[in-house]
Amino acid sequence: MESSVAHTADQERQRRSRTSPWPRYDEAALGFRDYWYPAMASYKLRRRPIALRILGEKLLFIRHQGRCFAIEDRCAHRGMPLSIGRCEFPGTNTITCRYHGWTYDVGNGVCVAALTDGPDSPVVGKAKIKTYPTEERKGLIWVFIGDGAPPALEEDLPEELLRPDAVLGVRVTLRAGNWRLAAENGLDPSHAAYLHRNSWLTLFRKFPAAKTNVAPQIVDQWVGYTQTAPLMEADYPGLGVWPNGEWWKRPRKGSPTKTQLRLPGYLRVNPFPASGIVHFEWYVPVDERHHRYFQFSVKWTSGFKALQFRLAYWFWWRWLAHVQFNGQDARMVKFMDPFYAEEDGWKREKLYRPDVGLTAWRKHCHEHARAVQKIAGASDEPRAEIF
Amino acid sequence: MESSVAHTADQERQRRSRTSPWPRYDEAALGFRDYWYPAMASYKLRRRPIALRILGEKLLFIRHQGRCFAIEDRCAHRGMPLSIGRCEFPGTNTITCRYHGWTYDVGNGVCVAALTDGPDSPVVGKAKIKTYPTEERKGLIWVFIGDGAPPALEEDLPEELLRPDAVLGVRVTLRAGNWRLAAENGLDPSHAAYLHRNSWLTLFRKFPAAKTNVAPQIVDQWVGYTQTAPLMEADYPGLGVWPNGEWWKRPRKGSPTKTQLRLPGYLRVNPFPASGIVHFEWYVPVDERHHRYFQFSVKWTSGFKALQFRLAYWFWWRWLAHVQFNGQDARMVKFMDPFYAEEDGWKREKLYRPDVGLTAWRKHCHEHARAVQKIAGASDEPRAEIF
Amino acid sequence: MESSVAHTADQERQRRSRTSPWPRYDEAALGFRDYWYPAMASYKLRRRPIALRILGEKLLFIRHQGRCFAIEDRCAHRGMPLSIGRCEFPGTNTITCRYHGWTYDVGNGVCVAALTDGPDSPVVGKAKIKTYPTEERKGLIWVFIGDGAPPALEEDLPEELLRPDAVLGVRVTLRAGNWRLAAENGLDPSHAAYLHRNSWLTLFRKFPAAKTNVAPQIVDQWVGYTQTAPLMEADYPGLGVWPNGEWWKRPRKGSPTKTQLRLPGYLRVNPFPASGIVHFEWYVPVDERHHRYFQFSVKWTSGFKALQFRLAYWFWWRWLAHVQFNGQDARMVKFMDPFYAEEDGWKREKLYRPDVGLTAWRKHCHEHARAVQKIAGASDEPRAEIF
Ligand code: FES
Ligand code: FES
Ligand code: FES
Ligand SMILES: [Fe+2]
Ligand SMILES: [Fe+2]
Ligand SMILES: [Fe+2]
Repeated sequence: MESSVAHTADQERQRRSRTSPWPRYDEAALGFRDYWYPAMASYKLRRRPIALRILGEKLLFIRHQGRCFAIEDRCAHRGMPLSIGRCEFPGTNTITCRYHGWTYDVGNGVCVAALTDGPDSPVVGKAKIKTYPTEERKGLIWVFIGDGAPPALEEDLPEELLRPDAVLGVRVTLRAGNWRLAAENGLDPSHAAYLHRNSWLTLFRKFPAAKTNVAPQIVDQWVGYTQTAPLMEADYPGLGVWPNGEWWKRPRKGSPTKTQLRLPGYLRVNPFPASGIVHFEWYVPVDERHHRYFQFSVKWTSGFKALQFRLAYWFWWRWLAHVQFNGQDARMVKFMDPFYAEEDGWKREKLYRPDVGLTAWRKHCHEHARAVQKIAGASDEPRAEIF
Repeated sequence: MESSVAHTADQERQRRSRTSPWPRYDEAALGFRDYWYPAMASYKLRRRPIALRILGEKLLFIRHQGRCFAIEDRCAHRGMPLSIGRCEFPGTNTITCRYHGWTYDVGNGVCVAALTDGPDSPVVGKAKIKTYPTEERKGLIWVFIGDGAPPALEEDLPEELLRPDAVLGVRVTLRAGNWRLAAENGLDPSHAAYLHRNSWLTLFRKFPAAKTNVAPQIVDQWVGYTQTAPLMEADYPGLGVWPNGEWWKRPRKGSPTKTQLRLPGYLRVNPFPASGIVHFEWYVPVDERHHRYFQFSVKWTSGFKALQFRLAYWFWWRWLAHVQFNGQDARMVKFMDPFYAEEDGWKREKLYRPDVGLTAWRKHCHEHARAVQKIAGASDEPRAEIF
Repeated sequence: MESSVAHTADQERQRRSRTSPWPRYDEAALGFRDYWYPAMASYKLRRRPIALRILGEKLLFIRHQGRCFAIEDRCAHRGMPLSIGRCEFPGTNTITCRYHGWTYDVGNGVCVAALTDGPDSPVVGKAKIKTYPTEERKGLIWVFIGDGAPPALEEDLPEELLRPDAVLGVRVTLRAGNWRLAAENGLDPSHAAYLHRNSWLTLFRKFPAAKTNVAPQIVDQWVGYTQTAPLMEADYPGLGVWPNGEWWKRPRKGSPTKTQLRLPGYLRVNPFPASGIVHFEWYVPVDERHHRYFQFSVKWTSGFKALQFRLAYWFWWRWLAHVQFNGQDARMVKFMDPFYAEEDGWKREKLYRPDVGLTAWRKHCHEHARAVQKIAGASDEPRAEIF
């Protein structure tokens, strides 16, 4: 049933794409393939394997002798989730399916034994599940969702993030809404100027009402802009002056904020939430209507200062910026999602001047994304033979 | 996904309609357009706007300086519900979208400011959301769901209901089941004779078992009939006499009951639940499987008598008629809905003699309904440009 | 909506079937028609009728004067479930629909009265609902789901089960997962050797690790095999000996176990769970993703020995075998179901040597099943006339 629905939805998607300036972006409800994505905090993965859905695929993360591995969470035999399996040969890096004992090498996905078919089972060395390259860096597990050999992680991450003196405060949450709406919200300069006025973070901070110059620039794979010439308040004919009555707020000091979005979908805001801190956020597609949201507060420092920053993150910035301020974004993305998912929002939306960054991003994705993740559906492989 | 499913469902609906005597009725799962509908009791709408789904559309009702307005609950920009918005310019009749501050004149739906794009924003005066004509009469908010200029409310309502001396007892509930099943239940003469025998209202009242003359008449846009020549009891061969053992019930006195149904879907029963009271009920489509049910008990009187009637309504008729008696109807409509929605009931049903009123109603709708409300789906508008 | 989705799903099913060696089996998501199925334990059906869904159809079981009847749980008039109806003529075997009083002879499904249309209603003798042949044997109600005259119950059941000295311990549960996955799990020789090692029943019992000879045989309509030449343990290169560390377990004594599956989907395991007891289990389709699971522990005995067996069943075998041991199966079927229902598992699965029994079963069903139960959908009957 579901595969046929997906199939029809696919045709619909094609039809709609014909008139779109960024058809590959329109098709990317499940994100872009052939990229590295953050999966979870390293400390979460201990003895117990952890199953996660990423870009619509089912993955199982396993730690063996300190190293992290990721495999398809689906036995090649009859599809049983391997997350309910066990390790039958302690000391080896294998996992055995709970149903009939097919045993896989977690490192390469090859079936190394079928315990219920004897050592001479023809399955051995032939059956195989998908494995996913992983890396552990900066306290996070990164996974490559794609085909073929992965590029170096460094190619997909900004150099500054991997530097030894980068200190990260991290928060991971599952959020409602398609990942593209979350990414567009991240880049979007104008919602900040209205939605976030009423946050704890901006309680005493004067905020521009509009940014008259938001021309996007593409620099080093980043699509973004630097805030200049802000409009602090204005007189709207027939309505009055806005904003108004914010006499207790002080103007923002320091350098202008630079907001930049990059494939396959992550954001850098420099500085945020305060001078000297850089904010990163990742929107990792889970399914068509949910994404996993990674927030990093990063400072480049070490020793006592690093500890000081960690404390400041955990006792102050995390709640103010990651929970409350970005919680306003979460709410918007959740409320906007039905319009795009059910009411043809990708065609019905009406964009305005501050959205030029957003359309630049969409075009950039259409032109440069390595590959589009397809909706899972009816397989076209020939029916399996018995081994 | 959903739009494509709706699309296929639409084709299905067309295919099925080819052999139907009332194809427009078959297509009207979401009701008929270009009519006035009751939305809610007036006293419910105060400072806080109220969002309602009517005929599948999302509406937002707002009260400003005592007057009631209804707008599309969807920002023209990126589809955000305006029900989470605010009024940023107290004293004006505007609402500002919570996301980027597009500000709409609630009276005409025109975007009068985009607070994050400055007073010279090209959006101003061009972007627009739908507005809905409303009227407040007899303690209710009425809304016109349709295109073009609405007719006078008087054209869609019976004159007697709007008379100054009409005193209304009102109950509003959300009920499961397509609105057509509810409407047909209202007109249906035979269910009353069986289902409602065992209600508190009819505990001491002898009820006809069948009405041998139920020929429908169309009078002044009303499809209905007057009960004549009732069959009080009969001998069913092989089964026995029925009804039987109701010796404690007394014959009904007074004039015969007149039951009449009218487009776009409301009923008048005169008298009900007692002599001197007229019952009205509206079946307002919410989505394909729910409707909002408005019940009015009406008496034409004033002064002390009006107060007396109000008390009688609240302490007696409301519970006996609107809650318990019509609650039996609600249960039937809910249980019947899966047959029509999932099991092709519109084709599989087998009608009998007392259903002639029902088929007269269906034909009447097919021929006279102003317009059929379409299932929301893929838009055919060209993709939006940036303003 | 739903009927059109089913229609598309149907086309999809056809397309997929083209390359399948057992297309009729692939289509049998709702099981096979024209067979007797167990419905419930006899003692459950008393005064109150009981509604059950079987092979996707809605049935209502009614007991009258000690006998059991089954009818379609859907009024011919407007589809109301008859399970909310009543008996208006005590002493007769009729049921009256709660909505308009159409009254059916429960024995033959014929409408014998329409209480709201008088004794001369043209509906009488013409309207009809489906009836289902039933039998009560061995403490169970059996129902024939099919068209035309049913074969004798004896034809669909093994003779030994109906013998007067067959004593049954019965358990009935509703389980998640398509019935075919449950049936295949029943026949499957290899999961037992791995999954069930860790059950209470096998705590002290040495279990073969693999069965090198699982060639299926078809004997008297049963597809099955007898366990021979088991492989108790083996050395898997690079992994080690498995199983291992089970020194406290004792080898199994007695004759080899015979496991056999038969149309329309039931299993016989002889002996199980202990010597002298034969296990039967039925997988009765409910809808595409659920089945009703009947477990019988059978011993042929009588008098005091029969009582002894009943006690042993209720205090020992029921918990050990039916609840805990087969509970492991239930979990597997539930976890495997999404792969087959949503991820095209019927094509993507990769079978191995011990699955030859399973493919023999599938081919047998394709060739010998009397009829495939169709997915309910758009009716092709002409639109009903008024009676
Ligand atoms: S499903 Fe994994 S071994 Fe059979
Ligand atoms: S969605 Fe309403 S202003 Fe942007
Ligand atoms: S639906 Fe059963 S009598 Fe009308
Ligand atoms: Fe934001
Ligand atoms: Fe009624
Ligand atoms: Fe089992």
